[in-house]
Amino acid sequence: MALRGTALSPPPVWFMRQAGRYLPEYRALRARAGGFMDLCLDPRKAAEATLQPIRRYAMDGAILFADILIVPYGLGVDVGFREGEGPALPPLHPGERLPDFAPDVFARRTAPVMETVRTVAAALPASTTLIGFAGAPWTVATYMVEGGSSREFSATKRWAYGAPDSFQVLIDRLVEATVAYLCAQVVAGAEAVQLFDSWAGVLPEEAFRRWSVAPARAIVAALKARHPGVPVIGFPRGAGAGIAEYAAATGVDAISLDTSVPLAWARHAMSELVLQGNLDPQWLVVGGDGLDAEVARIRDAMRGRPFVFNLGHGIVPETPPENVARAIAVLRRGNG
Amino acid sequence: MALRGTALSPPPVWFMRQAGRYLPEYRALRARAGGFMDLCLDPRKAAEATLQPIRRYAMDGAILFADILIVPYGLGVDVGFREGEGPALPPLHPGERLPDFAPDVFARRTAPVMETVRTVAAALPASTTLIGFAGAPWTVATYMVEGGSSREFSATKRWAYGAPDSFQVLIDRLVEATVAYLCAQVVAGAEAVQLFDSWAGVLPEEAFRRWSVAPARAIVAALKARHPGVPVIGFPRGAGAGIAEYAAATGVDAISLDTSVPLAWARHAMSELVLQGNLDPQWLVVGGDGLDAEVARIRDAMRGRPFVFNLGHGIVPETPPENVARAIAVLRRGNG
Repeated sequence: MALRGTALSPPPVWFMRQAGRYLPEYRALRARAGGFMDLCLDPRKAAEATLQPIRRYAMDGAILFADILIVPYGLGVDVGFREGEGPALPPLHPGERLPDFAPDVFARRTAPVMETVRTVAAALPASTTLIGFAGAPWTVATYMVEGGSSREFSATKRWAYGAPDSFQVLIDRLVEATVAYLCAQVVAGAEAVQLFDSWAGVLPEEAFRRWSVAPARAIVAALKARHPGVPVIGFPRGAGAGIAEYAAATGVDAISLDTSVPLAWARHAMSELVLQGNLDPQWLVVGGDGLDAEVARIRDAMRGRPFVFNLGHGIVPETPPENVARAIAVLRRGNG
Repeated sequence: MALRGTALSPPPVWFMRQAGRYLPEYRALRARAGGFMDLCLDPRKAAEATLQPIRRYAMDGAILFADILIVPYGLGVDVGFREGEGPALPPLHPGERLPDFAPDVFARRTAPVMETVRTVAAALPASTTLIGFAGAPWTVATYMVEGGSSREFSATKRWAYGAPDSFQVLIDRLVEATVAYLCAQVVAGAEAVQLFDSWAGVLPEEAFRRWSVAPARAIVAALKARHPGVPVIGFPRGAGAGIAEYAAATGVDAISLDTSVPLAWARHAMSELVLQGNLDPQWLVVGGDGLDAEVARIRDAMRGRPFVFNLGHGIVPETPPENVARAIAVLRRGNG
């Protein structure tokens, strides 16, 4: 409802990375899985991880438990996770053969995720929205080119800036795969999808237009052509004032605001869209009266307009689970 | 001139971290110094580092070679740098005794930096502006509290959010020391100063107002009271749309734009101020026609208004020195 443009009071709530290491039941599940990718690709366990926070907190949205690197995995890339160090992929160099997008191979490799979606869809209460997601092409490309996480994104930028035509081929391939991936999630039961462009904010404006905005527009257009009723949430993290252009140009229905976005400005600059955000996840670590006040500040700043309460970034592992309950209670208790 | 509000054509140019590891003459100098702090505190060597890029490229601005952690060093903190790992300080915990600001001790410990400023001022051509700088209190506090660099700034945020009154004492102390430090630089010969708030962008809006905007306002007011004619450049990196509030509320004369800031928006949102920026330093690695086009794009977007050409972030060590020359030549050659 909120994602279709209705102002609800209190606003619906879900949290990025609500299924995760801060929950003891997740840690127990994780301990029984092999690697992180094994967990993502085990439909029973991934469905269980998706449902754990819903059981505990009854959020209004359940975000599929998976990873943004499932798309390169689906393309045949060897995606691993090193404990405490994040993802590790074979770095892709300019001029190397790109992974092919073969629809049937991709569908087979990503089939476990679709089974997770179906399992969750069958188990969720009707009032809880099942949200699918994918990483945006630029962000996914940074992991593929750098071979993992990065601070400066030097290799990716050098490729994108120095050989844009060949980088475009990589981005186009990711657009194609992402459309297939998100459409399959919708067919399996996702009721909305979010596109995570976690590293949109490292791009200067022209590059942001080409590598963040344009691929998002292409993905949204293809998705809307096949599934017109499914809301799409865009999350160009760190895009600063550029987020308004992203909101206007991509065709997304909703924009997820990172922690830094001023709310009065966002209301004004993106008045046509549903907004989502943007509690600093560190507030969920701190808790207390300060957390209550910050939740109320955000809720009040978004009062009377379509809004989904969320974080500006994912829940961190050190979060005491009771603070998540507290934030939701404050939000729902508040003066409407 | 440009920093006083005159539109110059071509615009003046300097680059953040223009004195640094990408220059072979800097690496030679660095090899003869002890640790990085030893280099910062050796007036002859630090002056030499400041002047090296000016000799090579004749930038219009010379930025003092020093470090943003000189302020905690001046307060008596044991600041070290581990090779390849960045700064290492004893982490400051909430409730611990804060370092005192004793003006005479601080002045004595930071005296080498003032000697550097005097040495550079005597050596610089009159047409080159000597720019002093300091780290902003929030950013400096993050290094003091985390004990070095950070990705999540968890400890600093927990203190700032959970015990704001005691964190305010730390920030106030840093404001006081920063004012003394910048005033001393001006007395020694700095003609403008820049306040680097490198981590302003990790704060939600209320915290940004309190920990980034308010301290900058206090520093600018104190500096202007004593040295009214000295332009102050603010650099709230990553502040997104919040940069406009920073520009309006702090009293700075100029705003340095990080790489992500869209230029047409910046012109409109900060029409009263001098703007500076915002070439992605990775363009200086890539070079070629693309670099030329990006330099021209930024120059043209800022045509006819007070502007200083710069980067959106510091020069990276992998930068081929000839690309710096190329960017400056394109800028100065351009159509006016």
